[in-house]
Amino acid sequence: MSISNNTIERICRIFGYLDSIEKEKIEFISSSELAKAIGATEHTVRKDISQLNVIGFTRKGYEVKSLKKELGRKLNLDKHRKACIVGLGRLGTALLDYEKFQDDGFQIVAGFDCSINKIERIKSDINVFQVNRLKEIVKQQGIELGIIAVPAKSAQSVADRLSEAGVKGILNFSPIKVNVASGIIHLDMNFTSALRVISAQFK
Amino acid sequence: MSISNNTIERICRIFGYLDSIEKEKIEFISSSELAKAIGATEHTVRKDISQLNVIGFTRKGYEVKSLKKELGRKLNLDKHRKACIVGLGRLGTALLDYEKFQDDGFQIVAGFDCSINKIERIKSDINVFQVNRLKEIVKQQGIELGIIAVPAKSAQSVADRLSEAGVKGILNFSPIKVNVASGIIHLDMNFTSALRVISAQFK
Repeated sequence: MSISNNTIERICRIFGYLDSIEKEKIEFISSSELAKAIGATEHTVRKDISQLNVIGFTRKGYEVKSLKKELGRKLNLDKHRKACIVGLGRLGTALLDYEKFQDDGFQIVAGFDCSINKIERIKSDINVFQVNRLKEIVKQQGIELGIIAVPAKSAQSVADRLSEAGVKGILNFSPIKVNVASGIIHLDMNFTSALRVISAQFK
Repeated sequence: MSISNNTIERICRIFGYLDSIEKEKIEFISSSELAKAIGATEHTVRKDISQLNVIGFTRKGYEVKSLKKELGRKLNLDKHRKACIVGLGRLGTALLDYEKFQDDGFQIVAGFDCSINKIERIKSDINVFQVNRLKEIVKQQGIELGIIAVPAKSAQSVADRLSEAGVKGILNFSPIKVNVASGIIHLDMNFTSALRVISAQFK
């Protein structure tokens, strides 16, 4: 089964939306409502969902609980994953305690920084380490995801270290694009791109 | 000219990519390279660009400088915009000094928080104020964009305040979705959705 990145992105957004309305005890949703919620056309949403061979469409629409479960199972979104954060400045420490990660099945199990002083000062329930212990801790804890929260100038070397340490995926919050070894999935979080998308729609 | 949100998103990514390669003095780029860089198909990229009636395609490919300029002009991405941040915890203060915003034409001109103590302790070149001065400062400075960096429980009330204050767009970093008055463009930054998109692609 080969699914395009765009479909995966949309399914993840659909999954997140289903998760939020499930908490509000909503039982059914139409494809047009789903489309509106994630900013795609109804046709695209139906096509994306049908590509995953998911059933659950009734006369009342999609059944929220079962659709979420099926989509999660097909894309392995129902698995709990361990993640670590590299770079414990303001952004990194904010992410260290970002409770939504845990709610959504992503457990931050470690933080890393190159500064011993910084590590000693940090007050968090999460264990923090010097970055030279990255590989050891990633193996020991079975960490699959690395989150980069260092300044631009160190981002590429951190991406290299994370790849070597054996993570399967990298989320990069630094303002530069990083290159990763093939086989590692990565995504650059681009804050200014978000501001551009908003202002391009100004009347 | 009616352009879909998906096209706008992709054009903004193309614009960001052109901006980065222009800095590396790259003069021409093919549509297939552009497609690869932003994770879309070549067909989609060509369609998106042609929708904006942009010229600049030569035998060597698109001319980077002129394509960037044209796309920027069509989507008003070449305008400098003023923004403010509400919520000056760790994430908010990290964003306050995020230099990339400035590089990309977004000027953070003010920060707001409800805590006077926090405001007094903040060391930043950006002016910070109590949140009850939001409307006054937004008008006075001509702020078009509001960035929400408060915890989930206060996010909706901050979105309401920003709408009342007269911003045209809102970027929400809180983990909940916010509702805004019609006519205001908004985008929720979803960190866990990014982790889901990555892990859905794990082998």
